[in-house]
Amino acid sequence: MAVYTDINEDDLKAFLKAYDAGSLLSYRGIAEGVENSNFLMHTDRFPLILTLYEKRVDENDLPFYLGLMQHLADRGLSCPLPLPRNDGALYGRLCGRPAALISFLEGMWLRKPAPQHCRELGAALARMHLAGQDFSLRRENALSLRGWVDLWDKSATRADEVQIGLESEITEELALLEDRWPVDLPEGVIHADLFPDNVFFIGEKLSGIIDFYFACNDFLAYDLAICLNAWCFEKDGAFNVTKARALLDGYESVRSLSDTEIEALPLLARGSALRFFLTRLYDWLMTPAGALVVKKDPLEYLRYLRFHRSVRSAGEYGLERA
Amino acid sequence: MAVYTDINEDDLKAFLKAYDAGSLLSYRGIAEGVENSNFLMHTDRFPLILTLYEKRVDENDLPFYLGLMQHLADRGLSCPLPLPRNDGALYGRLCGRPAALISFLEGMWLRKPAPQHCRELGAALARMHLAGQDFSLRRENALSLRGWVDLWDKSATRADEVQIGLESEITEELALLEDRWPVDLPEGVIHADLFPDNVFFIGEKLSGIIDFYFACNDFLAYDLAICLNAWCFEKDGAFNVTKARALLDGYESVRSLSDTEIEALPLLARGSALRFFLTRLYDWLMTPAGALVVKKDPLEYLRYLRFHRSVRSAGEYGLERA
Repeated sequence: MAVYTDINEDDLKAFLKAYDAGSLLSYRGIAEGVENSNFLMHTDRFPLILTLYEKRVDENDLPFYLGLMQHLADRGLSCPLPLPRNDGALYGRLCGRPAALISFLEGMWLRKPAPQHCRELGAALARMHLAGQDFSLRRENALSLRGWVDLWDKSATRADEVQIGLESEITEELALLEDRWPVDLPEGVIHADLFPDNVFFIGEKLSGIIDFYFACNDFLAYDLAICLNAWCFEKDGAFNVTKARALLDGYESVRSLSDTEIEALPLLARGSALRFFLTRLYDWLMTPAGALVVKKDPLEYLRYLRFHRSVRSAGEYGLERA
Repeated sequence: MAVYTDINEDDLKAFLKAYDAGSLLSYRGIAEGVENSNFLMHTDRFPLILTLYEKRVDENDLPFYLGLMQHLADRGLSCPLPLPRNDGALYGRLCGRPAALISFLEGMWLRKPAPQHCRELGAALARMHLAGQDFSLRRENALSLRGWVDLWDKSATRADEVQIGLESEITEELALLEDRWPVDLPEGVIHADLFPDNVFFIGEKLSGIIDFYFACNDFLAYDLAICLNAWCFEKDGAFNVTKARALLDGYESVRSLSDTEIEALPLLARGSALRFFLTRLYDWLMTPAGALVVKKDPLEYLRYLRFHRSVRSAGEYGLERA
């Protein structure tokens, strides 16, 4: 929740010369988004989001992220559309950082999503998976098995500072996932970070999906497993099976899951829970006290992981067919 | 630079029922403003700022602040206009806090203002002073002499932690200002916090003044002294007399300063420098290490104070008549 880089008007005007975006009227730093600096900009033509990519985003990945947004928007998905510069490039440089102008999407992210929103989400996720099938660029998922092992190597010896017994529990979990992780599920472009704050609604209707900066190629069903964790647990830690059923039904209203995908779902959900547990644990241990960052509790995702460990089949997620 | 309170869509919709503001399309936390939580909101009718007043703003002062904005806007000043509720009230309650909807002003605050912007500022300040003359409510300046003494009582014994010698230097300065502070200058409603981030420009033209949450009744020339400090020093600490002359000329193009106001200006500038030094020092000493706040350097204003102490007459600010 921070603007990391402030911009002065001279640099901004120079940056805008490369675009046909109209005349600048205002720009205000917005507090959402933790990886980049974002500004809501008005010109005399349209509202825009100006994003400055901070060091956590690798510039080499920008053609993938921005190209994907363009690809999906071209296919009718409601997602931010990068405004190309006059020379066709999808981003330029501002304050020494890569920076892009992106269309502003109306809508609000829901602090308290209901089952019908999960259904909308599922359908939109499936549409995104289908629309991404013919996207030509590839990006490996840096936060899959290999990435989890790397993160764990950096955190394991200090994990018991957070909770006694964590070191052995997670080491065991990781070994099991390495052993059993699927190899042959349907693949494609996944969003990989589809938390409620990345999905906008106007009333009951989903109006847009944002923040494609973790998007990559991986199992499509893994994206669904991420949403199960991010959308279907209540604040008290209870799993809301009504929301899960709505999410899965919404997804299957657009794209049917195969039997192997359904069978793999509990394991994918464990992996997804471990992925967010590990990045949160790493940030928790490595962020210096007093840094201007709100640290997220890794133990929330440990509880989700333990829940999925107890799940025997996707039927427990409300999927009738399982 | 923070959103302190997050809002959920249900509470917001309930809040909006008391207004005729159109149908909600989006709201995003904005990173500007340190005292309150601010959101940029779009409805199908117009953009708005939603402000939640946090504990540093006394609810008893809201009729003054919001009434003043309405009064000034009615007289043609470009400042945010509170949208009244259907029952006529200028604010309601949201998340347990007083909250108001205020018109969105286009424009950008300048990170690098030039002399011509200072001239525009001076003229707008004088217009504000004239337009405020018939405003019926009064609010004492809580951060004038009496407030400085209170702040200093809380900080004096620890001041030498920040710089050796501060305790005696500031005690002496405060005694001198108490002794010589003017009593008979023209009074009226002043903004009292007119820093560059509270003044918007589109190109060379001033497009609006915002953030009236320190406004109060005091000497009009004291407001000008605040601007001398906030706008006319360069980042290296040098006083830019070209900017000061432009500021004063701009002001006098709308409202002439009296001889006693001109004579008092160096002393008012010392008082203004002391006021910001004292609030910054207090925050510096009292903010716990690790708090999610960027602390401002009090010593910047100590340097300004020392500069004004060396000034013999307002002629040194570029005022030809002095």
